[in-house]
Amino acid sequence: MKRPGTRPRAVFLLATLKHKRSGQEFSHTETLAEVVIECLKAEDVQCEMIRLVDYDIPAGTKSNMGKGDDWPRILEKILASDIIVFATPIWWGIQSSLMQRVIERLDELHNEILETGKSRLTNKVGGIVITGEEDGEQHITGNIANFLLNMGVTLPPHCSLSYQGSYARATKNSLGKKFSEENADGAEKMARNLAFFARLLTENNIPAS
Amino acid sequence: MKRPGTRPRAVFLLATLKHKRSGQEFSHTETLAEVVIECLKAEDVQCEMIRLVDYDIPAGTKSNMGKGDDWPRILEKILASDIIVFATPIWWGIQSSLMQRVIERLDELHNEILETGKSRLTNKVGGIVITGEEDGEQHITGNIANFLLNMGVTLPPHCSLSYQGSYARATKNSLGKKFSEENADGAEKMARNLAFFARLLTENNIPAS
Amino acid sequence: MKRPGTRPRAVFLLATLKHKRSGQEFSHTETLAEVVIECLKAEDVQCEMIRLVDYDIPAGTKSNMGKGDDWPRILEKILASDIIVFATPIWWGIQSSLMQRVIERLDELHNEILETGKSRLTNKVGGIVITGEEDGEQHITGNIANFLLNMGVTLPPHCSLSYQGSYARATKNSLGKKFSEENADGAEKMARNLAFFARLLTENNIPAS
Amino acid sequence: MKRPGTRPRAVFLLATLKHKRSGQEFSHTETLAEVVIECLKAEDVQCEMIRLVDYDIPAGTKSNMGKGDDWPRILEKILASDIIVFATPIWWGIQSSLMQRVIERLDELHNEILETGKSRLTNKVGGIVITGEEDGEQHITGNIANFLLNMGVTLPPHCSLSYQGSYARATKNSLGKKFSEENADGAEKMARNLAFFARLLTENNIPAS
Repeated sequence: MKRPGTRPRAVFLLATLKHKRSGQEFSHTETLAEVVIECLKAEDVQCEMIRLVDYDIPAGTKSNMGKGDDWPRILEKILASDIIVFATPIWWGIQSSLMQRVIERLDELHNEILETGKSRLTNKVGGIVITGEEDGEQHITGNIANFLLNMGVTLPPHCSLSYQGSYARATKNSLGKKFSEENADGAEKMARNLAFFARLLTENNIPAS
Repeated sequence: MKRPGTRPRAVFLLATLKHKRSGQEFSHTETLAEVVIECLKAEDVQCEMIRLVDYDIPAGTKSNMGKGDDWPRILEKILASDIIVFATPIWWGIQSSLMQRVIERLDELHNEILETGKSRLTNKVGGIVITGEEDGEQHITGNIANFLLNMGVTLPPHCSLSYQGSYARATKNSLGKKFSEENADGAEKMARNLAFFARLLTENNIPAS
Repeated sequence: MKRPGTRPRAVFLLATLKHKRSGQEFSHTETLAEVVIECLKAEDVQCEMIRLVDYDIPAGTKSNMGKGDDWPRILEKILASDIIVFATPIWWGIQSSLMQRVIERLDELHNEILETGKSRLTNKVGGIVITGEEDGEQHITGNIANFLLNMGVTLPPHCSLSYQGSYARATKNSLGKKFSEENADGAEKMARNLAFFARLLTENNIPAS
Repeated sequence: MKRPGTRPRAVFLLATLKHKRSGQEFSHTETLAEVVIECLKAEDVQCEMIRLVDYDIPAGTKSNMGKGDDWPRILEKILASDIIVFATPIWWGIQSSLMQRVIERLDELHNEILETGKSRLTNKVGGIVITGEEDGEQHITGNIANFLLNMGVTLPPHCSLSYQGSYARATKNSLGKKFSEENADGAEKMARNLAFFARLLTENNIPAS
């Protein structure tokens, strides 16, 4: 069990469809997630971002789908974290296929909950970051929230942040600046609540069933 | 501010379409909510259920829509509670029109959050109860979860309970017995977590922005 | 059965929460619906808009809920139409409680389909109009589309139109002008397809089961 | 342009997560899709099923993501069809990541619509097949319906079929038999409407904008 007083750790699962290695344009979702990361660091939280598109995560519902599967080491990082943030763009009203794949690959952990009544994600805190062009994030925030609650994760108030709009001509720097300014309040509140609940639950574990 | 040690109070907003006063058949949603209430009482939580269909709640987005509006006194009970449970049937994949109306009537409180950065629902804990005939509750749980998180409410893990299936020939007693038996684990876990977080947040208020 | 060559009739079910009789501010949804109505008239379609908030439509799932229920005469107009358009604002990611109530009140017609295999809405064509402030219409368009398809209604391509954005200082006239200009292509295509399919299905009835 | 009188062609995009080549258990979704295919054949429609999990379809939003991308030849089959059926399981309230990937990869065709006003999917007819264990298909049917309508596809009434329930001990044969018996009416009606509209639109093209 985690010792109270340790710095909380956050892992961001970034589900942008844009490949970094291929030199594609920057990701809006990554840029907004970085704004939240800055705020979490100000709350003395360690952060790591995992860009899913650069990993090989085969379709399936098991924690390990065999040879060449990168998911097991991503799962290790999730299990070692206090805060888990799902960060996704919107495509046609839904989280990206990479975010949905994370959900599918976590399903084996849910089967454990059904069998044992215990979750390996208990006492962890969840967050959500979404970007889209006027596509509507509320419903996707809801989808992910429903999943995290069923997985045993706690959701603090204002634990989600989204940005909608088109910035075709933005550079990564200009968009980052824009996001920082326009979402400062929301990102700070989200980070403050994630950090507060991560510490609160480290010191006050949820009673086991 | 609430004194630590006080018994937590829960309010259930029941959005069944079935009118009690008209002697209509019993409500599945009410019956499942009563199972959760029994578990909450075992956790020493005071409970009250408000059957929305028996009140006059006009369409609108203000806390008070004027003469004949029953909403202001329902809102008072919500504000005086530590735990707020949204209990709704499913009609065509959506919460009932009465549950949606509650959301619309709470919108003025969200405007306050936007203006002041503070929520009158902060340090309150949310729960969700849903029944339907194979209609799918996850998406509705998500809708309501998204709303509650934006309103400043905290969502503990496993804070939702649902039951799907048709019991055309059930009586209220037989259905209550069935729900108690089949949902015992889920209802107990939900109630335990609601009560745990209600007490935790009474003793450890979320830092104001 | 309808005689081919007759002018098609369209009914708009307007689910704004804004009461006309109370002199409240104008409705964005009504204004956008009027843009579609102009285009339908250019296609020689007769149109009528029903402002639901000005009627007394009690909660329930029957076609007639008894004394004082305004729904039966609205249902008559729906049954007499060739085109049915659901027009709704978004509140917290969902169609308004008034739009949801229409769905609930149409449920008895769905029971008829389950019993007889025949729908009283067969050979009718459906449309959807949605407004919201960056709330996301795709998911709501989907909800309503799913309902209409199950009710026996046909959905032509591009049969939905939405507008998102805040126009706090707009007047009804300035917003109408704005909507007309910015949505001209979408409204014309929607109206053209609704009218084309209404005539096509009048002349080529869907084979009965 | 397609010559009237030709046999319509249907393509099923099967988004099961179960790999055929790995000898995994049979797919419920595939089994239900096969029931619909039988009914379509009785309507003299040619059918092909594409099992997406057995192809390499990289993340992205372009019609061709370069070397090793299997999507371009799947897209060719879609463009050559009169009827397109999306067949997907439900994972946590959402279509599978493979179905979502299809949607993302079709996005370039939507950009064409935005630029030219014309869709390469016009005069095609859409269908939806969904299986899940009490997870709720209505909302997913809605997601897919919204996408197809925006892509220029026509949706006939009753164009979706779903089955919910757990059949852990079923064999492919026993489940196929069960699905055939229990869904006969729904599958026949769906197939009849898909075939009727495919022929109707081949003979009566939607007027171009």
